[in-house]
Amino acid sequence: MISAPEIDAAIAQQRQAFERALTQAVAIPTVSMDPERDSDIRRGAAWSASFLRDLGATVDIVQTPGNPVVWGRFAMPGARRSVAIYNHFDVQPADEPEWRTSPFELKIEGERYIGRGATDDKGPALTAAFAARMAREQGIPVDIHFFWELEEEIGSPSFGSFLSGAPKVDSVLVSDTIWISRDRPAAPLGLRGMQTARLVLRTGDHDAHSGLTGGAARNPIAELCDLVAAMLDADTGNVKIPGFYDEVRAPSPEEVAGFLASGFDAEAFRSVHGFSSLRYRDPAEITRRIWALPTLEVHGIAGGYQGPGVKSVIPPWAEAKISMRLVPDMTPAKALERLTAFVKAHNPDVEIFPEAGLDSYLAPTGGPHVGALKKAMAAGFGREPAFVREGGSIGAVVQMQRHLDCPILFLGLSLPEHGYHAPNESFDWHMASGGMKAFTTYFQEIAAL
Amino acid sequence: MISAPEIDAAIAQQRQAFERALTQAVAIPTVSMDPERDSDIRRGAAWSASFLRDLGATVDIVQTPGNPVVWGRFAMPGARRSVAIYNHFDVQPADEPEWRTSPFELKIEGERYIGRGATDDKGPALTAAFAARMAREQGIPVDIHFFWELEEEIGSPSFGSFLSGAPKVDSVLVSDTIWISRDRPAAPLGLRGMQTARLVLRTGDHDAHSGLTGGAARNPIAELCDLVAAMLDADTGNVKIPGFYDEVRAPSPEEVAGFLASGFDAEAFRSVHGFSSLRYRDPAEITRRIWALPTLEVHGIAGGYQGPGVKSVIPPWAEAKISMRLVPDMTPAKALERLTAFVKAHNPDVEIFPEAGLDSYLAPTGGPHVGALKKAMAAGFGREPAFVREGGSIGAVVQMQRHLDCPILFLGLSLPEHGYHAPNESFDWHMASGGMKAFTTYFQEIAAL
Repeated sequence: MISAPEIDAAIAQQRQAFERALTQAVAIPTVSMDPERDSDIRRGAAWSASFLRDLGATVDIVQTPGNPVVWGRFAMPGARRSVAIYNHFDVQPADEPEWRTSPFELKIEGERYIGRGATDDKGPALTAAFAARMAREQGIPVDIHFFWELEEEIGSPSFGSFLSGAPKVDSVLVSDTIWISRDRPAAPLGLRGMQTARLVLRTGDHDAHSGLTGGAARNPIAELCDLVAAMLDADTGNVKIPGFYDEVRAPSPEEVAGFLASGFDAEAFRSVHGFSSLRYRDPAEITRRIWALPTLEVHGIAGGYQGPGVKSVIPPWAEAKISMRLVPDMTPAKALERLTAFVKAHNPDVEIFPEAGLDSYLAPTGGPHVGALKKAMAAGFGREPAFVREGGSIGAVVQMQRHLDCPILFLGLSLPEHGYHAPNESFDWHMASGGMKAFTTYFQEIAAL
Repeated sequence: MISAPEIDAAIAQQRQAFERALTQAVAIPTVSMDPERDSDIRRGAAWSASFLRDLGATVDIVQTPGNPVVWGRFAMPGARRSVAIYNHFDVQPADEPEWRTSPFELKIEGERYIGRGATDDKGPALTAAFAARMAREQGIPVDIHFFWELEEEIGSPSFGSFLSGAPKVDSVLVSDTIWISRDRPAAPLGLRGMQTARLVLRTGDHDAHSGLTGGAARNPIAELCDLVAAMLDADTGNVKIPGFYDEVRAPSPEEVAGFLASGFDAEAFRSVHGFSSLRYRDPAEITRRIWALPTLEVHGIAGGYQGPGVKSVIPPWAEAKISMRLVPDMTPAKALERLTAFVKAHNPDVEIFPEAGLDSYLAPTGGPHVGALKKAMAAGFGREPAFVREGGSIGAVVQMQRHLDCPILFLGLSLPEHGYHAPNESFDWHMASGGMKAFTTYFQEIAAL
């Protein structure tokens, strides 16, 4: 076993190569929800495979019915243990006007790396890969697999196809989560699930003149607003669909105590995410709402005239893009069924186009892998993690639980201020270098089991 | 006085020149609500002036604080009477994807003329101008003025400036209204007014991740939907703002009888405007709703992700573009005041950006000019007009009433199937040729008073 100062020195030497790799990775706009980006997805897979091979891995680009999965492996002599690191190489769109830099050209400002995918999830992926090379150079006897997916942002529809042929491993580390505060490492024990849908109402063929028809004409925007208002109390966030909360498993008092020990700060949360105000001020209520309760959210709404001024048309259609975030023990199917029944009863003309459904997840809370994770985070960042929940959804986790039947834990490296899914998304060298140390420590710990 | 067959023959000879002029007029995209079309507005004014001069008029392009007004006049020897014809030469935007032809290239299909502005209001404007040339050639002793505005679609903010220097006339004919049915001429006795506004709610700086923040974060789309639902019953169209209906003057039984005698057909109305269904089936209720009652309408709504699929962001803002159509004796100021009070009480963070406000209008119901109009329509189209109301708003009418202090009547030439403000807007030779005869007859009638 090599010493901590030696590891620190080895990590410091990676910085230039890490920044070069992240620049190349971010330059490929692997936006999985945009069909026109298919060739970029393929380029992303090819670049990933080439990168991992250069680090010394054996790599397959595994085809699926959808986007491929890049499977890299560092096989070590004498390894008795194995671990898979899950990351994704696809990214969110970057069409927000608020971007101050070109989103697919990594901007390096001191320790800070700005670009789409920098923290979600290319930066953490590359961090783990550099750590694996160090582990190999140090001769740590553990087999390390990389599962780099390219459909995470669209709900991982083809990842199960890959997993059906994937190697069995002793544990999985998912590196795609966010700390609660830069001051304390945090790891979730649970993830929310999700069911998204588009609600579309068409009441006419084309724009109509509101002077000629207004009063007798149906207004699809107003009807859709009425539906949204009937489903959701916008002030409290409470969902008004009957039965919506029936299967919600309330968090234990210990869990709630963990939520509050995570460094969660209501004002910092508000400020980091750029909100002018929140629905609640009490941290216990906020953490319960974002981690342990389901939601119904409107992500986008469209209909009618979108140009300057007011064009007094009555539009022929309106659309709302919505999601329900789900917690244990809710299921996407049941939530969708209740949504559908409610919508059809309220306005039978509204069409529902369901999209990705994802189960929620609860992780193990003890055992040797959890112990290794605690030591890894302590080595990388000076403190053991607070165990919280993740309000987001990672479909791949649910599928890995089904196929791999081993502990799936979370070694996330993103900070709230990195701006997941937001304009000016960033990552930083502090988290990358600490992450390399944490991963290396995890490999050492499980090799010693 | 010349005979009707001579007039018919003279009109038939105008067709080619009329189609050439309409082609040229439609080719200039005089979209007044688009600031980038300013040079097209100027080109539209120049073309109009040149066209009227070619017909024999004396023309001034009268500058205002906004867009110019084209003032043409045919002074006749021995004229004791004068009339002004009001039309507008600006048009609605033509950004609807449903256009089957290029909106600013007039497509002539037999008798039908397809293009933006064909019926609203360039076709009727040119019709009246050709009729004036015929009146002049026939020596009808009446002075005919043309007021061609270029800001009608944005509420005529500068027309009052023009009118303060405009000539006094004995009557005005506004040619910018729509019949109820192609089978019977119709002329409105009243117009609805209007107050438009944009409602904007901002709750954050940028898109936030709904997994990380959903539940505690405010959702501006959901809050705006809640506001819309609180203001308007989407099923009935009833406005729920307290006091909204207080100043509404109910139509007399005679007026309601006129509404039903106009040829109004609920199924034809639904079909012509392309609606899948209406809020009401009873023609009396429909005509009351579209002509004699005020409305609150949502013309456009925006916020959040607009691309393919569902991007699970919580957006930072949402906007609704709304209008209130007003009837006698409501005023825009009072309606806006009630709207503002309601919005601020319901959600104080919503900002209100009021736009154009227009008064409603009621015309005289008798007298020699109304008699002349009846004869004119009968000559042009075989039947006297049914007197109805117009659900739309013409700001210029209210201003002319204020400045000119003479009867303002409506000689409209548009049909429901022409698609005012809609994609594939059209006009036709039947209405143009009948219109030329109607205008010529009106000139003869008032010359003989």
